[in-house]
Amino acid sequence: MNNALQGWNDTIVALATPNGMGAIGVIRLSGSQAIEIANTLFPSKNLLQQPSHTLHVGLLKNEEMVLDEVVIALYKAPKSYTGENVVEISCHGANYIQQQIIETLASKGARPAKAGEFTQRAFINGKLDLTQAEAVADLIASNTEASKKTALHNIKGGFSKVLKQLRDELISFSALIELELDFSQEDVTFADKKQLYILLQKAQKTVSELIDSFQLGNVIKQGVSVAIIGKPNAGKSTLLNQLLNEERAIVSAIAGTTRDTVEETLNIKGILFRLIDTAGIRQHTTDEIEKIGVEKSLEKIQTADIILHLFDYTDANLNEVIAQQKSLETLNKTVITLANKTENILEATNIIINQFFPNALFMSAKNGVGITALKNTLYNAVMQPNSIGNEVIVTNARHVAALQKIREGITDILEGLNNEVPGDLLALDIRRCLHFLGEITGQVTNEDQLDYIFSKFCIGK
Amino acid sequence: MNNALQGWNDTIVALATPNGMGAIGVIRLSGSQAIEIANTLFPSKNLLQQPSHTLHVGLLKNEEMVLDEVVIALYKAPKSYTGENVVEISCHGANYIQQQIIETLASKGARPAKAGEFTQRAFINGKLDLTQAEAVADLIASNTEASKKTALHNIKGGFSKVLKQLRDELISFSALIELELDFSQEDVTFADKKQLYILLQKAQKTVSELIDSFQLGNVIKQGVSVAIIGKPNAGKSTLLNQLLNEERAIVSAIAGTTRDTVEETLNIKGILFRLIDTAGIRQHTTDEIEKIGVEKSLEKIQTADIILHLFDYTDANLNEVIAQQKSLETLNKTVITLANKTENILEATNIIINQFFPNALFMSAKNGVGITALKNTLYNAVMQPNSIGNEVIVTNARHVAALQKIREGITDILEGLNNEVPGDLLALDIRRCLHFLGEITGQVTNEDQLDYIFSKFCIGK
Repeated sequence: MNNALQGWNDTIVALATPNGMGAIGVIRLSGSQAIEIANTLFPSKNLLQQPSHTLHVGLLKNEEMVLDEVVIALYKAPKSYTGENVVEISCHGANYIQQQIIETLASKGARPAKAGEFTQRAFINGKLDLTQAEAVADLIASNTEASKKTALHNIKGGFSKVLKQLRDELISFSALIELELDFSQEDVTFADKKQLYILLQKAQKTVSELIDSFQLGNVIKQGVSVAIIGKPNAGKSTLLNQLLNEERAIVSAIAGTTRDTVEETLNIKGILFRLIDTAGIRQHTTDEIEKIGVEKSLEKIQTADIILHLFDYTDANLNEVIAQQKSLETLNKTVITLANKTENILEATNIIINQFFPNALFMSAKNGVGITALKNTLYNAVMQPNSIGNEVIVTNARHVAALQKIREGITDILEGLNNEVPGDLLALDIRRCLHFLGEITGQVTNEDQLDYIFSKFCIGK
Repeated sequence: MNNALQGWNDTIVALATPNGMGAIGVIRLSGSQAIEIANTLFPSKNLLQQPSHTLHVGLLKNEEMVLDEVVIALYKAPKSYTGENVVEISCHGANYIQQQIIETLASKGARPAKAGEFTQRAFINGKLDLTQAEAVADLIASNTEASKKTALHNIKGGFSKVLKQLRDELISFSALIELELDFSQEDVTFADKKQLYILLQKAQKTVSELIDSFQLGNVIKQGVSVAIIGKPNAGKSTLLNQLLNEERAIVSAIAGTTRDTVEETLNIKGILFRLIDTAGIRQHTTDEIEKIGVEKSLEKIQTADIILHLFDYTDANLNEVIAQQKSLETLNKTVITLANKTENILEATNIIINQFFPNALFMSAKNGVGITALKNTLYNAVMQPNSIGNEVIVTNARHVAALQKIREGITDILEGLNNEVPGDLLALDIRRCLHFLGEITGQVTNEDQLDYIFSKFCIGK
């Protein structure tokens, strides 16, 4: 696919499973010599004579000793992840054993792989384009349904498909311009200016929608930060506990798994909500917030995407709450207002609240009333219907940067069309757009850029 | 194999690779329904129709969504680790994805496995005896060549074979006794008392050698604790650095691997040496030891297996060193005396040292002289030639306890033979010995004991 990077014909090796003690560990080899190298250590069978996609149990031995009892999985080129011969060795999950096997494979001619090198080879061998390769890293880092789904969709070429369509549109446009150029000596103007416009505007719409999807893409990848604020005794801790406890129960239902995620995150229908300044918020920080007062906590929530403004529905001094709500509204952020403690019904205040907080959610954090409605509100605040109408969501800042360049390019062409700029100049702009498209998919790359992209992968992938 | 535990016919599931982010994670299913359960989530192929030991790439899906793109490895009963149908699913190494797949498999009828349950099933299905199963846990925990080699030898039935031989000897003896009993009415004495003696003494020798091997077995499994002591400026830090740096260089030669082992351990020809009280010994603790003086540090080394007594060969006050050496010799431990700083040759002191420290190793820690000799001395201090003459080394306290009971039993029989105790009483003692043998291999077990043994395994094995 990318000739500049051809010539990688050595065989690489790395541990593909996480470091640490486990039942098994998997060591991955890829390259033209992968099967030969594994075969020198596997006396019980000739691996070279075995079909692809088969498993072989036996002892792994070097000249001096038994390394381990292993299972060898064979994948023959091109039917493998990298497109090369791939051997995966499942050994016992001891660091000592894994390192010893890797060292021995290295002594037999395999080179320790760099981060992301297996995926980089898959890219070089045309098994994946760059957006698909990047989605592999996203998938491994995924921690919610939404992030997993987006990454999987992109691995399967969802984003690539939209980009290919965009490319086809631009090339069609280019062809029309070229046609025009052929007749330029004859001093005719563009034959069908309208058709050119339509093509370009369609492309521009796609690009803009992709760029817009990044806001959601970022949310999916990074999560949404939420600040809960309110006067002392409004019920913030109770609300937090209600939100978090339900979540916790869901996760701890999986026996035998440990959670190493941050505790103060909420997963609502696959979107991750992060509670700002949550270190110890359940025990200490809330108290601290109460002490330093609402004014101080306002500073802290500048970085929040969403603000939950919680107040005590039966508060004798609702004027303060109204003032606070007003100041929050100046922040130009999504504010969700929560009227808490509905367990103590006060008809009189109902009227005031309806007047000053027409969109307030009524709830009883203590009794868990309104928690589901709050979760739905949070989810809907983030998940606006996707204007592209499909599952393609841009999650990568590199892609957005290139898409913005493409949008600028198309805008220039549209202006050029209006100003009757000569076709050969327009063709240059088209080429610029195609260049940036190629940068996204990796058709246009330089080695440094690729190395940077793949260096963010983990070893063994 | 063990009827009391039959009836486990459900299908179990667990993550077999370590927790954490990696290129891939492996989820293991075992049980009669393993392939059926995986098949419900794998629409691209009918796994039930695929041969054993094959690999299948495709999407894992439930009713609502794609879980991941995976590789499925099939092992059909009885040709699998557990002896049951086994499916291994290689998925992307994200915790989120792994948990989701395990949850989905659980919803399809698989039960989350308990620690060690896969190996326990291998034991129940007669794929491994208990000593082999225990060796699997030892192998996973192995961190040196010696611990790996011993565990691998035992997995392959090395220890089982010796035990079987022992059992055969005891049963032969039993047969002779039974023969005697048949004629007991006729009031004859033992036909061939000498033959009985020879048989028993052979068995007793084997048992004793196995028990004796535990000292080495323990060293192999736990490592050897070594304390370096000496007067201030004797060169302890330099010695430590020399010992550790070489070691470190060997390990860091493997690119892309991280070491999460304790830094202050030395691997000499596969035996692990642990340096006592090594937390920060290279920067701070040595200073502290110097301050509190040798008397104080002597307290600390009570737990050491080996003491390295380092002194400055050119010390003006060798009387102190001699006094210290004398006090060390009262500890009844292996003391290796090191005459340091031979770079400053002093002929006069040579004579004194030869007189008071006849076994001292001469060295220059600064220049790395004598380091190899020291390592050899450390290794030889531990690795006495194995009297059993083969590779069987007992590493498990449970086994030693049972072997000691067997030795007592055989001693009782030998005494009984001397005192002409009736054959039926001797037969009881034989049965006692056979019972303890069966406890080691798992032929005689109770469920609590098994649960205890396997609970020490990791999940997924």
